[in-house]
Amino acid sequence: MSRIERLAERLGQPLLVTKGANVRYLTGLDSSNAALLVERSGEATLYTDFRYVNTARELGGTTVVETSRYVIRSLAGLLSGRSIAIEADHLSVSAFETLRGGGIRAEHTTGLVEALRAVKSDEELAALRRAAALSDQVFEDLSHEPFVGRTEAELAWWIERRFRELGASASSFEPMVAFGEMGARPHGHPRADAAVPGGTLVVVDAGCVVDGYCSDCTRTFLTGGAPDAEARRLLDLYELCARAQLDGLAAVRPGAHGRDVDAASRVAVEAAGLGDAYGHGLGHGVGMEIHEAPVLRPESEDTLEVGNVVTVEPGIYLPGDVGVRIEDLVVVTADGCERLTTFTKEPLTVG
Amino acid sequence: MSRIERLAERLGQPLLVTKGANVRYLTGLDSSNAALLVERSGEATLYTDFRYVNTARELGGTTVVETSRYVIRSLAGLLSGRSIAIEADHLSVSAFETLRGGGIRAEHTTGLVEALRAVKSDEELAALRRAAALSDQVFEDLSHEPFVGRTEAELAWWIERRFRELGASASSFEPMVAFGEMGARPHGHPRADAAVPGGTLVVVDAGCVVDGYCSDCTRTFLTGGAPDAEARRLLDLYELCARAQLDGLAAVRPGAHGRDVDAASRVAVEAAGLGDAYGHGLGHGVGMEIHEAPVLRPESEDTLEVGNVVTVEPGIYLPGDVGVRIEDLVVVTADGCERLTTFTKEPLTVG
Repeated sequence: MSRIERLAERLGQPLLVTKGANVRYLTGLDSSNAALLVERSGEATLYTDFRYVNTARELGGTTVVETSRYVIRSLAGLLSGRSIAIEADHLSVSAFETLRGGGIRAEHTTGLVEALRAVKSDEELAALRRAAALSDQVFEDLSHEPFVGRTEAELAWWIERRFRELGASASSFEPMVAFGEMGARPHGHPRADAAVPGGTLVVVDAGCVVDGYCSDCTRTFLTGGAPDAEARRLLDLYELCARAQLDGLAAVRPGAHGRDVDAASRVAVEAAGLGDAYGHGLGHGVGMEIHEAPVLRPESEDTLEVGNVVTVEPGIYLPGDVGVRIEDLVVVTADGCERLTTFTKEPLTVG
Repeated sequence: MSRIERLAERLGQPLLVTKGANVRYLTGLDSSNAALLVERSGEATLYTDFRYVNTARELGGTTVVETSRYVIRSLAGLLSGRSIAIEADHLSVSAFETLRGGGIRAEHTTGLVEALRAVKSDEELAALRRAAALSDQVFEDLSHEPFVGRTEAELAWWIERRFRELGASASSFEPMVAFGEMGARPHGHPRADAAVPGGTLVVVDAGCVVDGYCSDCTRTFLTGGAPDAEARRLLDLYELCARAQLDGLAAVRPGAHGRDVDAASRVAVEAAGLGDAYGHGLGHGVGMEIHEAPVLRPESEDTLEVGNVVTVEPGIYLPGDVGVRIEDLVVVTADGCERLTTFTKEPLTVG
């Protein structure tokens, strides 16, 4: 059964799919300006402009209708008088009002296509494995590179270049390379104005895109040269994070609630009195997008099932001091999970 | 007067800014999860989560409030009972309903911050000049590279690498390199499975980001080896596009309507009987985003003013055959426009 047909089976009324990644998942069309109307019968009409219409027709599987550059404005006329469902998380208030102005009755829905996308097919898993294997190679290569004296921006560009040289089509996101107190900020841009010193922790979070699917991996490296007591302190912090990460991994299995997996990863960190230093959720789904369903965090309402692909990435952030994060990408299996990123998590000292 | 103060002067009621680039323009904070409430008094409160809150505080200029990871859900409580304006083009239907659920009365607005952003300051123009100069250099270097026998993907990666080696922080978008009939598709991805042949046209559309601002430039190259008659035909097509581009440039001036500038660029193409082959608008604004206000196209309701930065990029696309597009980035000046991209538009034959 096609993806469109599987979606159609779940619909109470026709669904207008407007999120780009959802349109791509259902049709194969990679366009910044397309919408797909999926009927309950399983028939589907793909609306897009001049620039994408030939590609859309070649893909097949849908009836393709060329619209103006303003797809939603065209749809307000083409679908006038109909009752449809819309993707409320992805349609803007303006677009919604444009559709209403065309006499379209629109029911709000959320997460219908995302729920399909959260369970990966064998073909999708194969692409995710290729992306993860490629990033494993890049982390391996990176671990032999000198860190000290190079800037975060230099190292981040080295990573991006290596991804591409090995065949990735892109980075999944701008690589994060953050040493010292910048490592305590989970989302900074790599700095070009400060070189990595010895005796600190460097958080490296990077991933790549292979065949349209993303990898995501974080390792934290220790640069050599710390006095013994300081090296011991940093390694203790590392080991605590590694403990949290293993506890998170151990909790991943079909039927587990996202919030409980998250909670499992917090036990050791809280016991060490550092609960407040772990200020983000444990993980998120990964696939065509770097952030997708399901989520592993305290507010999660998701329940894991076989075929979900999620990150497991606890972090400990000491403001003004250092940060550490360790992240694997895993697929949920019948009896737990399998790591897709397999680069070592032993603490590594770099030059 | 600060950007926030200039925005405040235009407001009928407090505006909740949720579009990321608009928040960045007003505060300097580059975050995927932040919202800014600008009061009519010029005071502003910046809401963001754990990950960005320290950076937000260091930037100054606003009162920073740390929220949950779900900024909008937090705002539904924090702003309960207030009347505010929202950015209807950028807020999702779901987010809007969450705010309404908190008892917030929300008026729809569009384009308020975008209107400020459309007129560049001297500092912004300086960054745009740097980005354009860097892409000029890359086009110059590219024109000395061999094309024939390399794939579109190889050439696109060469361009991206060169941008970064010369100091750009990123590409503005995935470079387009498209030969033959792929050049007739204005938005294809570079192919890794077909090498550029001799005797064809190759459309190259690329830009880079310098200090947060984007450049955008397109040139179309002729690969050597075409029989004389074919080379003549391709060069005639090129010259027609170049004529359209010069006509477009000549129409850019303060007070000109976006639709009229677009129309000016169509005269020669339509006279040649190829009007239908020019299937997109003439251009778009460029700044922090690669597509912003104002727009130059048949449906445009914009009027140009001094300090606007726009692309001028007519194209002629012959399906199944070849395409040609020529694009400059220009700034609107008191008496017309000044090109920021200055690489030659003479037809260039590459190896």
